[in-house]
Amino acid sequence: VKSQNTTTDEQAVGQALALCEALLSERGEVSGARLAAQMLAAYQALDATARDVFLGRLAAAFNPNQDDLIRGARRYATDPSVETLARLRTAIESPRQELFRRTNQAQGGTAALIDMRRQLLATLGAHPERAGVDADLAGLFRAWFNRGFLNLQRIDWHTPAVILERLIQYEAVHEIKGWGDLHRRLEGDRRCYAFFHPALPDEPLIFIEVALTRGLPPNVQTLLDPDSPISDASKATSAIFYSITNCQDGLRGISFGNFLIKQVVEDLGREFPRLELFATLSPVPGFRQWLRSAGPELSYSQALDTLLGAVTRVPGAGAATGPRRRASDQMSATRPLASVSPELRAEITTLCADYLVRAKRHGAPLDPVARFHLANGARLERLNWMADSSPAGLSRSLGIMVNYVYRADELERNHEAYARHGIVVASPRVTRTLARKIPRRRASA
Amino acid sequence: VKSQNTTTDEQAVGQALALCEALLSERGEVSGARLAAQMLAAYQALDATARDVFLGRLAAAFNPNQDDLIRGARRYATDPSVETLARLRTAIESPRQELFRRTNQAQGGTAALIDMRRQLLATLGAHPERAGVDADLAGLFRAWFNRGFLNLQRIDWHTPAVILERLIQYEAVHEIKGWGDLHRRLEGDRRCYAFFHPALPDEPLIFIEVALTRGLPPNVQTLLDPDSPISDASKATSAIFYSITNCQDGLRGISFGNFLIKQVVEDLGREFPRLELFATLSPVPGFRQWLRSAGPELSYSQALDTLLGAVTRVPGAGAATGPRRRASDQMSATRPLASVSPELRAEITTLCADYLVRAKRHGAPLDPVARFHLANGARLERLNWMADSSPAGLSRSLGIMVNYVYRADELERNHEAYARHGIVVASPRVTRTLARKIPRRRASA
Amino acid sequence: VKSQNTTTDEQAVGQALALCEALLSERGEVSGARLAAQMLAAYQALDATARDVFLGRLAAAFNPNQDDLIRGARRYATDPSVETLARLRTAIESPRQELFRRTNQAQGGTAALIDMRRQLLATLGAHPERAGVDADLAGLFRAWFNRGFLNLQRIDWHTPAVILERLIQYEAVHEIKGWGDLHRRLEGDRRCYAFFHPALPDEPLIFIEVALTRGLPPNVQTLLDPDSPISDASKATSAIFYSITNCQDGLRGISFGNFLIKQVVEDLGREFPRLELFATLSPVPGFRQWLRSAGPELSYSQALDTLLGAVTRVPGAGAATGPRRRASDQMSATRPLASVSPELRAEITTLCADYLVRAKRHGAPLDPVARFHLANGARLERLNWMADSSPAGLSRSLGIMVNYVYRADELERNHEAYARHGIVVASPRVTRTLARKIPRRRASA
Amino acid sequence: VKSQNTTTDEQAVGQALALCEALLSERGEVSGARLAAQMLAAYQALDATARDVFLGRLAAAFNPNQDDLIRGARRYATDPSVETLARLRTAIESPRQELFRRTNQAQGGTAALIDMRRQLLATLGAHPERAGVDADLAGLFRAWFNRGFLNLQRIDWHTPAVILERLIQYEAVHEIKGWGDLHRRLEGDRRCYAFFHPALPDEPLIFIEVALTRGLPPNVQTLLDPDSPISDASKATSAIFYSITNCQDGLRGISFGNFLIKQVVEDLGREFPRLELFATLSPVPGFRQWLRSAGPELSYSQALDTLLGAVTRVPGAGAATGPRRRASDQMSATRPLASVSPELRAEITTLCADYLVRAKRHGAPLDPVARFHLANGARLERLNWMADSSPAGLSRSLGIMVNYVYRADELERNHEAYARHGIVVASPRVTRTLARKIPRRRASA
Repeated sequence: VKSQNTTTDEQAVGQALALCEALLSERGEVSGARLAAQMLAAYQALDATARDVFLGRLAAAFNPNQDDLIRGARRYATDPSVETLARLRTAIESPRQELFRRTNQAQGGTAALIDMRRQLLATLGAHPERAGVDADLAGLFRAWFNRGFLNLQRIDWHTPAVILERLIQYEAVHEIKGWGDLHRRLEGDRRCYAFFHPALPDEPLIFIEVALTRGLPPNVQTLLDPDSPISDASKATSAIFYSITNCQDGLRGISFGNFLIKQVVEDLGREFPRLELFATLSPVPGFRQWLRSAGPELSYSQALDTLLGAVTRVPGAGAATGPRRRASDQMSATRPLASVSPELRAEITTLCADYLVRAKRHGAPLDPVARFHLANGARLERLNWMADSSPAGLSRSLGIMVNYVYRADELERNHEAYARHGIVVASPRVTRTLARKIPRRRASA
Repeated sequence: VKSQNTTTDEQAVGQALALCEALLSERGEVSGARLAAQMLAAYQALDATARDVFLGRLAAAFNPNQDDLIRGARRYATDPSVETLARLRTAIESPRQELFRRTNQAQGGTAALIDMRRQLLATLGAHPERAGVDADLAGLFRAWFNRGFLNLQRIDWHTPAVILERLIQYEAVHEIKGWGDLHRRLEGDRRCYAFFHPALPDEPLIFIEVALTRGLPPNVQTLLDPDSPISDASKATSAIFYSITNCQDGLRGISFGNFLIKQVVEDLGREFPRLELFATLSPVPGFRQWLRSAGPELSYSQALDTLLGAVTRVPGAGAATGPRRRASDQMSATRPLASVSPELRAEITTLCADYLVRAKRHGAPLDPVARFHLANGARLERLNWMADSSPAGLSRSLGIMVNYVYRADELERNHEAYARHGIVVASPRVTRTLARKIPRRRASA
Repeated sequence: VKSQNTTTDEQAVGQALALCEALLSERGEVSGARLAAQMLAAYQALDATARDVFLGRLAAAFNPNQDDLIRGARRYATDPSVETLARLRTAIESPRQELFRRTNQAQGGTAALIDMRRQLLATLGAHPERAGVDADLAGLFRAWFNRGFLNLQRIDWHTPAVILERLIQYEAVHEIKGWGDLHRRLEGDRRCYAFFHPALPDEPLIFIEVALTRGLPPNVQTLLDPDSPISDASKATSAIFYSITNCQDGLRGISFGNFLIKQVVEDLGREFPRLELFATLSPVPGFRQWLRSAGPELSYSQALDTLLGAVTRVPGAGAATGPRRRASDQMSATRPLASVSPELRAEITTLCADYLVRAKRHGAPLDPVARFHLANGARLERLNWMADSSPAGLSRSLGIMVNYVYRADELERNHEAYARHGIVVASPRVTRTLARKIPRRRASA
Repeated sequence: VKSQNTTTDEQAVGQALALCEALLSERGEVSGARLAAQMLAAYQALDATARDVFLGRLAAAFNPNQDDLIRGARRYATDPSVETLARLRTAIESPRQELFRRTNQAQGGTAALIDMRRQLLATLGAHPERAGVDADLAGLFRAWFNRGFLNLQRIDWHTPAVILERLIQYEAVHEIKGWGDLHRRLEGDRRCYAFFHPALPDEPLIFIEVALTRGLPPNVQTLLDPDSPISDASKATSAIFYSITNCQDGLRGISFGNFLIKQVVEDLGREFPRLELFATLSPVPGFRQWLRSAGPELSYSQALDTLLGAVTRVPGAGAATGPRRRASDQMSATRPLASVSPELRAEITTLCADYLVRAKRHGAPLDPVARFHLANGARLERLNWMADSSPAGLSRSLGIMVNYVYRADELERNHEAYARHGIVVASPRVTRTLARKIPRRRASA
């Protein structure tokens, strides 16, 4: 039975590839849209195994002609000129990229190609030889999803349900617990914006959630409470970016967040002239894990050691993204942290500042969220104790969240300091916290 | 005074280039949209001479690093692998393309880049070394203006005036003589469609004009008459494509016409199930000129020789695209041709068929309109005597126009015949005309 | 304390009325929109008691001048002419109507007036003297909500959430149990349409839910099951209207349903040429109550008597529109009916047909849903046993539902028969059911 | 032959009326939209004579039942109560109004009814007995075209051509001389707004043209010059309303201008915070005619008498709205006025102020444009010599134009003064002009 299946798969993959060939041939020039649609349908009809085979074949075929390419490379190396460069360029262009360009003629082609790359990326670890396919897709996407083609749309309760449902599905930072929760996040004292591409009108590429508040909120629970009273946005002094989510796995590496935050800061500033502060309330996703793994190197207190053990045993707090759990879990999860001594609290906070500012790899901070905002030119403003008491928050960072502040007039300077010299720009407050430094064990330990 | 101007220009060009540098630098990552807007403003403020200097500098700078590229080329030539290929690819990418990509972040960036290429193309003949700049822009445009991102829009009297005005300006085949003329071309028995790109909502990329008729119309004058009665489109049996215009010089080489015609054929077929025939009524732009220049080679009659002389002396008929002229000119222009003998008419028609089917360079027909429709898979159906009696029509082709017919079920076959073997697919009627062949002079003559 | 409140109320009502005066005065001609907005704000700030007082004052003031009116009436009665009629017309127009007309200038005025009438209607039973206010509002609404100004919109998953949420709130026939339930009702094999007025873009006036099926479905449970598989709409032969809801209490008496059904029948017929049958699956809201109250007059069986008692005792089945209840309730509710004998089932069905066809008041059927569809020209097609097993369904009609069929070519005829002669047009099948007549007790009994 | 035509007409009118009957009958309740469409088609197919007959019949039929009405009138006169009033109201409602309400169900019904009233109004002088038909239509229109349902739309070069073409056709104050002229009026330093009703998306109801200037322009020629340079709107200090046109004859008596001006003043004030002055530049349509006809009563100078004679003889200046004429005409028309003595100029200006402020009938100014702006609460600000040198301008007012100024904070006061006491609010400047009073002849003269 199995061999029969394999045969069927083999045939189906063969047909999909034959359609790729046709699409690249003379026929493709005349009947591109139809052949593209057929090819995509054939691909989408494949099961997971067959798709994997198909992606492998795609990597093996439709590559530049190696002989031409070697010849072109040699010629250019011997005689570098406008002409030999142009010819080398022609030789290096992979027919696969033209294949993908033509595929895009089909109705829904862009979405299908994004999905194809999503699947491809999942196999890239096991199949590094497929990198060329990824490069071809990524190259096209980089051109197609240029900032100049994206539309910033405000998301509110007038937005079509099909898009709102996607927000519920995609939200990666603070889970949206149904339509009621979502509705609260779209009320008058909240803002939500997303980037859309004209070819994907129902698919947000990235979205950001903002709370308009007076002052910096001490924690995210207050912001997320679906029953909290709605405040008057026109009196807000701060815009708090409390969640930002990239929606399309297949667009990995094509960055939107940077543009999104800047655009939203600008638009909000125009709409609400009273706003003085634009800051995130961000998770510190790698802190707890770093604490544990860096433990031997750090000489942190016995109390912290005990606490770390306790947090890890709490149901749901051990995994970064666990399944949805009940309120009772959450309560028990926060317990070990509820009655922490001032000393321990200070110790943890200092360690977290240390993690954010000094813990680096290849010159860049270990923490991915920190990397993102610092590269955007934001500055590390403040650490907030018990600001995310959800199991996920405890698991990520013992409940600590941080504010990164966006100030239009220092973004360029901060970015350059970070990008050229790896400097983490931090507020005086954070700098003071860092002064209370934890002694590291000696390397010999 | 001149030297001062030159200094000013030099400074202005220098500033524009400095903004290009900034846009490509770290600052560009943070303040891309602003820097892009400043750079474009600086470029647009340059006068013609200064722009030319700027384009020259652009060609000289922002190229791939030659040493890296030579090294990458050698490595690949020695050891062709996924990795060496990837590295060569990175080395070959020109920073200029990234510059253009970032430029597109500015409001109106896409339009500005198209315009920049339009200006560049005008200088390319004199400056072949600027081909690299063109390649970078064309490469981006090929990705950006993918068929999958274009919207087909019907143009009618409900279309915004800003777009209709562009149609009047751009129309390249049969001049639109003001708003009244345009209105007639958008009535119930006519259709007009254009492709738009989401980033250029007011700018048609290409548009096509269609008349819905009963049978093949004998000439274009009837179709163009602004006072002709409006017929009932639901009774039409033929859709006549009588004008197709590419609007953006800066998008030269990015083909839309092919997609446009096929889409329109499909859409019209759905809207009007009675339509049996989809045909163009096309000019033969190179015929008269070919006749004259090929004269020594052909042994055409004395009568034709006289006629050619007469037509050329007619005011306005000598130049392919003359200034707008009065009705009296037009009348006098048609006079030499009004009373042509049947023999001469047959001779000219046969010569024209010969020109379309047999006159080739590098295996492709000399006539550019023929090349376009044949490459799309259409077939040469019929030659129409005195079908365009305007000065332009006489000047182009002694008034002859042709029909190319689009039949869904033979497009692929025709295209392949043409693309692979250079075969011009023609109707039996045209083939019969060709049988009456004109004797060619011997090469010695 | 109470007297103080009363004073405050009195003042607030006085202010609202003063704004009404101002709006009707010269000032209202210049500053209508502003005064209207102020007046509405003042009204909306009143609490329930104060609003009631306000409505009473509105009824007492702003009436036609009685002396003028009597004079006009006398003159017309004495000398009926175009002029005396025109003058009587002027005299009879109530200033209140002009007040409402000017109120409509405020942003959101139309919605506010609809809401005012909703509140007024609730007090009309206790205050028949307010009928004039109602007449003024109803007169305006009849003009404003003319069919010619309503837009039919398809409601689907692309509809803004703000509208979908209203559907969940308003649905009056088969409760929508959250967003998942709603989503199922908007899938490919379902259709939902609503009428909107341009001044109320977020407020459906009426909506209808349609299932596209093969054949007549035996019950509504299948249609409502949120987990039912989605079928292929293009293969459907029947369009089943299973729910129709008037949304705006304040528009009572302005009929939309008639127009809505006809428009939807037409549109669906165009979209799905295979559809042969357009039928409702309708509740019989008054049947159980009629059975009980008409009991003494009818000689129905002991078994039925027992059953009626049992159904009434079932939790939740006693009230027409009870609170939302759990599945377990529903199960127990259907139990008495699950194992009914064929004889009893026949008896009940016949009684229901009798109720629908013969039970009348003032010549019209007792059942309001029957009145609606018969007045539209539909015919009573079929009774369906246990077609609505929800507590509401049992409570309304012992679970029976009926199909009314809309056939374009007999609507006018059926409507005339019904409107002129009170004839209930029924299918042969229903007629046969009626033949099995239940003996009525003699009048003396 | 004639009698046959009459028969045909008679039949056609009869058919149209029969469709009216059907529409009002039971059938109309079921098939309203279809019958309405048929009725309108039948009416529109009638020629002018037949339409007139039809309108006469419409006036004779579909009236309230006179007996019922007399009975209702008597009852109310005897016993005035809520009930007798309600019954009288029912009796007075004309079935014709219900007929028109149902007519509106047809696609395009609203436009057709407006057109019907336009035709009706043209016959009302000769047929006063048709006033009831007009009252029915006007009553509906007053409800339907309530300000609350109108949309203010900015008109610019992005507006669909179908609407722009209507502006060219409708413009009643300063003729738009083709598309180029229109385009200039829609440039950055101009604004144009129109009211639209949702049922007539392509039909402006009224539109206003505004020039954004620095200071009050001395004449309208400068504003209308299609070749004038485009100035920077953001630096403007004045908004000059130089043309306002009611587009729909069939909506006569339903006023929009008042709302339009106020809305535009508000919107422009928000868009351009620098604007300090909102003023019209208005014609004085009745001045020259008043001068001539009031001549015997006034003792104006011999010089003026001569001038009046000269102006009247100028080609094209004699008629208020003459056919379009050549520039040479216009030049010669201005000649008599070009070299007027300072004394005569002062005399004419004073007379014009006199005409505007003191010449009244029934307590209201004679000049219709003055009545309109004064009733809106504007004040008469300034008279401008030779401000409209077109033939129409000379003919209307010897070239004089006036500014009416709209100041938000005095509109209510001015309006009340005008509406209650007939006071023409004028600036000190105008008041000073009036002081130079022209001696009137004694009544005996």
